[in-house]
Amino acid sequence: MAGGAGQRMGAQTPKQFLELRGVPVLVRTLQAFQQAVPDGGIVVVLPAEHHTTWAEICTKYDVPEHITATGGASRFDSVKAGLMAVPEEASVIAVHDGVRPFVSEELVRRCFAEAAAFGSAVPVVRAVDSFRRVTDTGSECVNRDELRAVQTPQVFDAKVLRQAYETGNGAAFTDDASVVEALTGRVHLTEGERTNIKITTPSDLLFGEAVIAASGQNLL
Amino acid sequence: MAGGAGQRMGAQTPKQFLELRGVPVLVRTLQAFQQAVPDGGIVVVLPAEHHTTWAEICTKYDVPEHITATGGASRFDSVKAGLMAVPEEASVIAVHDGVRPFVSEELVRRCFAEAAAFGSAVPVVRAVDSFRRVTDTGSECVNRDELRAVQTPQVFDAKVLRQAYETGNGAAFTDDASVVEALTGRVHLTEGERTNIKITTPSDLLFGEAVIAASGQNLL
Repeated sequence: MAGGAGQRMGAQTPKQFLELRGVPVLVRTLQAFQQAVPDGGIVVVLPAEHHTTWAEICTKYDVPEHITATGGASRFDSVKAGLMAVPEEASVIAVHDGVRPFVSEELVRRCFAEAAAFGSAVPVVRAVDSFRRVTDTGSECVNRDELRAVQTPQVFDAKVLRQAYETGNGAAFTDDASVVEALTGRVHLTEGERTNIKITTPSDLLFGEAVIAASGQNLL
Repeated sequence: MAGGAGQRMGAQTPKQFLELRGVPVLVRTLQAFQQAVPDGGIVVVLPAEHHTTWAEICTKYDVPEHITATGGASRFDSVKAGLMAVPEEASVIAVHDGVRPFVSEELVRRCFAEAAAFGSAVPVVRAVDSFRRVTDTGSECVNRDELRAVQTPQVFDAKVLRQAYETGNGAAFTDDASVVEALTGRVHLTEGERTNIKITTPSDLLFGEAVIAASGQNLL
């Protein structure tokens, strides 16, 4: 999923195309998946207006083989468009944010294995900060011990994911776990990785540079 | 507040003493407050076993004038110990995490001003990730639009904060906003800063290096 227009970046270039150490974020993300699951197929979902830029990037960098699909108005519509492009014979499907290039091979493989076993696998990490919930009259404390930040890849049994997106109503969902949960009543959680961040702000890009430097020094 | 033993860091040195570009995190935090509020007094709350290390650091670096207090078994007890060391005449008191060195002068001053006007000021930022709540039977989606990550400084009318800590019961609270809320029924929220992070993991330290580099280049 590389649908974001990147308004939060304050940059002209959509965030998935911004370079980290000379390689666009989305290219790094595809490389991470190819290394983790060399036999898997990849579908890149992009807004129509970014197809030309992406085609140019693909001529310049070492981009794994993939199908390109056109995203819709919402995230829900974009995932649906991506699912249409996934071959019928796929038994397990991962949905991943194009702007999470730091996902480890280990996490990708574990999510695939657990989704094959349990029907779904959603990586989550404990919340570090305290949280409050904004209400009509003010705000209230949230029990931090119960909160988990949801990451991707979110991996599902292909039939379940397709059915959830056929029957689901798009507006209310911010991630695929919620879409599948609306159909099946539950999803299987697995431990995510603190470095598996989304590149959504300029400071994330700096953090990304630091993660790359650190991985070269075995600091993570 | 510099009470954490830093188990999450995997390092021998408590995280507040780790160096960012050659200056310990806690020293940077004190410098940030002195620059923002030059007339304010500072109380550093440290576990007893760290007083010697801190005294050594104070001989080596440009550390703003401050009182050192000894923390208790819990965060609640440590804040209480800190309040005992704050002079009677203080009208507004800020509680800040010693491991949040990147707080801006602007945010510190705004929190003081709003606390003087509203009785409290708690900086919060919108959640970027999706969240789930772990329940007895599994997990459920949380409405991200309502969630705010709570930062520090949390600034309060001195009388209110002292009373909240005198009457409050420590066990359930992860931050001062919750302690005051238990007494007053509400707290005033204000906009925090995404770069005002807590240094709690090795990757946060890397992020910190990146923030420092970026602030020199006006990238934030």
